[in-house]
Amino acid sequence: MQRYFLNVGPSTSPLTLPSDVAHHLTTVLRAQVGTEIEVVLNNHLAYRARVRTTAPTTTVDLLAPLDRQSELPVRVTLLCGLPKTKEKPELIVQKATELGARRIIFFEAQRSVSHWASNKQARKVSRLQKIADAAAEQSHRNYQPQVAYYPSLTTALAASPADFRLVAWEESAKHGEVSALAQTLTAIEPGQSLAAVFGPEGGLTEQEVAQMEEAGVTAVGLGPRILRTETAPLYFLSAVSYACELATTEH
Amino acid sequence: MQRYFLNVGPSTSPLTLPSDVAHHLTTVLRAQVGTEIEVVLNNHLAYRARVRTTAPTTTVDLLAPLDRQSELPVRVTLLCGLPKTKEKPELIVQKATELGARRIIFFEAQRSVSHWASNKQARKVSRLQKIADAAAEQSHRNYQPQVAYYPSLTTALAASPADFRLVAWEESAKHGEVSALAQTLTAIEPGQSLAAVFGPEGGLTEQEVAQMEEAGVTAVGLGPRILRTETAPLYFLSAVSYACELATTEH
Repeated sequence: MQRYFLNVGPSTSPLTLPSDVAHHLTTVLRAQVGTEIEVVLNNHLAYRARVRTTAPTTTVDLLAPLDRQSELPVRVTLLCGLPKTKEKPELIVQKATELGARRIIFFEAQRSVSHWASNKQARKVSRLQKIADAAAEQSHRNYQPQVAYYPSLTTALAASPADFRLVAWEESAKHGEVSALAQTLTAIEPGQSLAAVFGPEGGLTEQEVAQMEEAGVTAVGLGPRILRTETAPLYFLSAVSYACELATTEH
Repeated sequence: MQRYFLNVGPSTSPLTLPSDVAHHLTTVLRAQVGTEIEVVLNNHLAYRARVRTTAPTTTVDLLAPLDRQSELPVRVTLLCGLPKTKEKPELIVQKATELGARRIIFFEAQRSVSHWASNKQARKVSRLQKIADAAAEQSHRNYQPQVAYYPSLTTALAASPADFRLVAWEESAKHGEVSALAQTLTAIEPGQSLAAVFGPEGGLTEQEVAQMEEAGVTAVGLGPRILRTETAPLYFLSAVSYACELATTEH
C-alpha cells in the first residue's frame, strides 16, 4: 500500500493533500474516490486513509491508526566520511533509510577525496534528503531520516551527542571474545541513542581514531572481511536491527 | 595490501603469475622486485608473497601463510529472485561477496519481470562472476563466491541442499518472541551450511512460499521495515556475520 508523509496533525479530517502528493496519487497511481492509502502524520504515527474527493482538490478521510510500528527501538545516527563518488552517498542514504537510520551525516574526513564547496552543500543535502524521503515512504518508515553535512569530523561529532558512540575500525577486530559491537548492542535499551562513525575510502586516519577515543567514542570491528565505505554502515544497521528487533524477547 | 587468487597449490615456489595478474601488479600497481602482496592458493589459504622477478615473467616467492582467516564460519548460499534491472544483480553480487556469501544464485521467480534467454545466461553469469572475483580480492576473502543462474525456483532449490534452508518472507515477522531467523542463527554450528531465498520486486507468490514450506524451507522475517529486493540479502548476511562472528564467545 502506498504511504505518504504529511506534515499535519491527526485532528483534521478530511485532510487536503499537498499538490505534489495529490498529483502522484491521482495521476501516477490513478487513485479514485474510495482508494485506500497510508499516511504518516507529524506525530510519526501511520494511519489508514481513504480518498474522499479527487477534484478540485484531493482529500482523504483518516481511518484508524495502524498498529504496526516500523522504527528501530534505538535511534541511530550514521556519520560517514564523504565518499569519492556521487553515487555512494546516494546508495548509503537510500539503503540506510530502508534499514532504519534516523540521521545520516556526511563529513569531510582527512582521507575524503571529495569536497563539498560551501555554496553547494545545501543543494547536495537537499538532493540526498529527497532520496531519504522517498525511501522512507517505500520502506514504510514512521520517520524520514534527516540528512546533513558537516565540514569536519569535529563539527559532525559535536552535532551528534548519543548514549553510545562507536567508530567502525577494522584494527579493533579481536577473536575469542565478545566483540565491542555485541557488548554495545546487548547493553543498549529501547529509547536510547547510538551514533556510529565510518571512514571514507582509505579509512580513517590514526589521528581521527585517536581524537574519537579521547572523546569517548568506542572502536568496534565489523567482522574479518574488509567492507567498502558504503557497505559498512549497512552492515552496522542490519546488526542493530538483528540484535534489537529479532534476537530479543524483551519487546 | 593487494590480494590475488591463484589456481595453484602451495608446493611450488617461486610462482609464475598468470599474465593478467602480472599485468595488473606490474603495470597498474607498478610493483617492483621486493614488493609484497597476498595470494590465495587453491587450498583457500592466503599467503604473503614477495615479487622475485618482473621480467621476462613475473614471479613471486611464497612467504608464510597468513593467520587471518576471513570466511564466515557457516557456508551461505543466496537464492535471489531475478530483479528487474541489470544493476541490481551486480550490486547484490558485489556486496554479498564483501559480506561473505559462498554461492549467489539468481532464479526466475514467478514475479520476475526480467528473463535471461538460455543463449545469454552463460555470458551474464560470467560477467557477474568477474564482479564476484574482483570483490573477493578487494574484501580479502579466502573464497571467490560461485555465481549461478537457474530458470526456476524448483531447479534452484534442487541445486542448493543445506543444513538450514530459509526464505525471507515479510508476513512471517512476529513480535514478542525470538524470531525464526534468530532461532536458526543460534542453532547453526560452525561448518554447517545455510541457504536463503529472497523474492524479486513484488515479492514471492503465496504459491512459491507454500512450495518451499512443503520442502521444509523455514519462513523468516527480517524486521518490520520493507526492504528492497537487493537490500534483503545484504541484511541477511550482515545478521549471519553478527550472530556467528561477533555476538559469540565460542570461536
